[in-house]
Amino acid sequence: MEVVHLTDPLKLACGYSLAEHVLCVETYGQLNRSKSNAVLICHALTGSHHAAGWHVGDKKPGWWDDVIGPGKSIDTDQFFVVSPSNIGTCHGSTGPLSINPKTNSTWGPNFPKLHISDWTASQRMLMDHYKIKCWAAVVGGSLGGMQAMHWSVTYPDRLLSAVVIASAMKLSAQNIAFNEIARRAIKEDTDFHGGRYQEKNKKPLRGLALARMIGHVTYLSDLSMAEKFGREVLSGDFCNEKLESVKFKIESYLNYQGDKFANGFDANSYILLTKMLDYFDLAREYDNQPSSAFRVATCKFLVLTFSSDWRFPPERSREITKALITAGCDVTHAEITSSLGHDAFLLPNSRYQQIFSTFMRRVASTLER
Amino acid sequence: MEVVHLTDPLKLACGYSLAEHVLCVETYGQLNRSKSNAVLICHALTGSHHAAGWHVGDKKPGWWDDVIGPGKSIDTDQFFVVSPSNIGTCHGSTGPLSINPKTNSTWGPNFPKLHISDWTASQRMLMDHYKIKCWAAVVGGSLGGMQAMHWSVTYPDRLLSAVVIASAMKLSAQNIAFNEIARRAIKEDTDFHGGRYQEKNKKPLRGLALARMIGHVTYLSDLSMAEKFGREVLSGDFCNEKLESVKFKIESYLNYQGDKFANGFDANSYILLTKMLDYFDLAREYDNQPSSAFRVATCKFLVLTFSSDWRFPPERSREITKALITAGCDVTHAEITSSLGHDAFLLPNSRYQQIFSTFMRRVASTLER
Repeated sequence: MEVVHLTDPLKLACGYSLAEHVLCVETYGQLNRSKSNAVLICHALTGSHHAAGWHVGDKKPGWWDDVIGPGKSIDTDQFFVVSPSNIGTCHGSTGPLSINPKTNSTWGPNFPKLHISDWTASQRMLMDHYKIKCWAAVVGGSLGGMQAMHWSVTYPDRLLSAVVIASAMKLSAQNIAFNEIARRAIKEDTDFHGGRYQEKNKKPLRGLALARMIGHVTYLSDLSMAEKFGREVLSGDFCNEKLESVKFKIESYLNYQGDKFANGFDANSYILLTKMLDYFDLAREYDNQPSSAFRVATCKFLVLTFSSDWRFPPERSREITKALITAGCDVTHAEITSSLGHDAFLLPNSRYQQIFSTFMRRVASTLER
Repeated sequence: MEVVHLTDPLKLACGYSLAEHVLCVETYGQLNRSKSNAVLICHALTGSHHAAGWHVGDKKPGWWDDVIGPGKSIDTDQFFVVSPSNIGTCHGSTGPLSINPKTNSTWGPNFPKLHISDWTASQRMLMDHYKIKCWAAVVGGSLGGMQAMHWSVTYPDRLLSAVVIASAMKLSAQNIAFNEIARRAIKEDTDFHGGRYQEKNKKPLRGLALARMIGHVTYLSDLSMAEKFGREVLSGDFCNEKLESVKFKIESYLNYQGDKFANGFDANSYILLTKMLDYFDLAREYDNQPSSAFRVATCKFLVLTFSSDWRFPPERSREITKALITAGCDVTHAEITSSLGHDAFLLPNSRYQQIFSTFMRRVASTLER
């Protein structure tokens, strides 16, 4: 992991500026002589720079290890992969846990509101740090796919291809509703203290666990939960509950996932990032015409979606592809059959990996060596 | 409203007995001379005896006023409609807010765990109170539909017809997951005090509001939320968030609904009733063969479902009907096209009302006068 110090001011969409900021970055593979083989990985809501491989103490590898590595879809024998933690997150890059130089205390809840354009602008600065002129590909799932789309219309001459997986051009009211419930759960935890919990030496663990549990259910599908847990009982007896009540396996699993997450994530970051998701609307500045937005894009697109994803359902991806076609863009679209819901983009699936690999091999074949 | 005092002991499925209990009941229409025209209304999770008409101070009528009344699907010119609040609820019937005669204090969190069979057993006692031998129909949506199915297999000679709307023979893992998140939100509210909040003169309003917000999103559909709220902004400006952050209309609506509910419902009841939903499994005692369960049923069935209901999707109703057909039962099945999600069963819809009315008219036509 490398800590990249970016010393130019970053003007944010909300009106504030960051005089300087740092990004924690992992890279995999080798940058070729002509610096043409770089791939930018855009992480999703709770992702980080640790996308692939193993760190000392890891119980599992980086979050996209199934996709990034030698011989994998993003083949590190072919590509130089750049994976930053973006600003506002809580894994070392500038965010609510960082020191605000103006106050000499942590930003906490006062970290500026972020938009996806702020992430792509920061990634654009990171590009200069590596002296990369053009990404071979900008790639991401979910919130990561939004960044890839934003790159394609904001810096059209700076990428050859965009891979947009399990994503949407904007959230639906239902998406926003789940995010708002998560935020309220955090804010109403009595240990939240209006976001100033660090000063009180507290963490709103209960609220953050609830937020994650809500999110987690929306990442899975009804079918995958039925297959994995069904109505399996962990303890208790339906016919005699004098001693203990019946507990289902799914309840225990979900509580465990919530607690684990709460201990490793920052509540102010969670609020900030869910708001960023809510705010994104690719076509807002283009008269709400997605095809107008994509009119400036020149890269090739791969749009992938999963049949059982109800958080960003296939219909959202079809809208992206329809807008791309209307705008005259070169797009490959595939809907992958999967029971694994939104999480499918993080998990092995032979058709997914095959289509993704084929697309990336074609990208590699066009690169200047 | 009538308070019916039932003085026979009620042996509960969990092993406990209630020596006596009270049910608050509303009735609509007139019981005919042969007492053949009675219809039992089974309420859903947060329902009450107040199913139809207006009370002094009501801002809206009873929760099923679109269905129950003169000339409506459950025509009170034809039927005598009996609508109890079931035990464990918080609207006056015996429940966590009642006094436990053994301790002389409120039951609170120690109210016995409930199963749907306890509700139908209590309703069976209510039947004797009115000297009704056989219901013309037992009718309910969601959790209410589960009661109607349970009636059909437990007291098969005590009903002529069962109307099962937007229901399921058991919850899915996803359903249980949402219920568990709601329960955890309540239990982790620092005002919950292990359920003993009344003694502390507190109410876990924040937890209960969150629980309702989660439930509420699952009662609506993605489409209905898109149609009603979309991404409409209530306040704030995406381009200048120095003063305030952007607030979407859906956020405000959902928070309002949560707070309103929290002020009118009891947290211990909510935990109890969601557990009851989770526990229900019609076929558990029938070797997990739903058709074996229905084999004893002799009544006519109407099974209704709504196309956009993802809490109890059409597939769950098709499973019910398939089991009924396998068991040789007389069943009418209809899937109603609606964008309104699970809540559709509470709302006007001409095809829904027409099919429901036709079925009930046929029931009425067979009754002894």
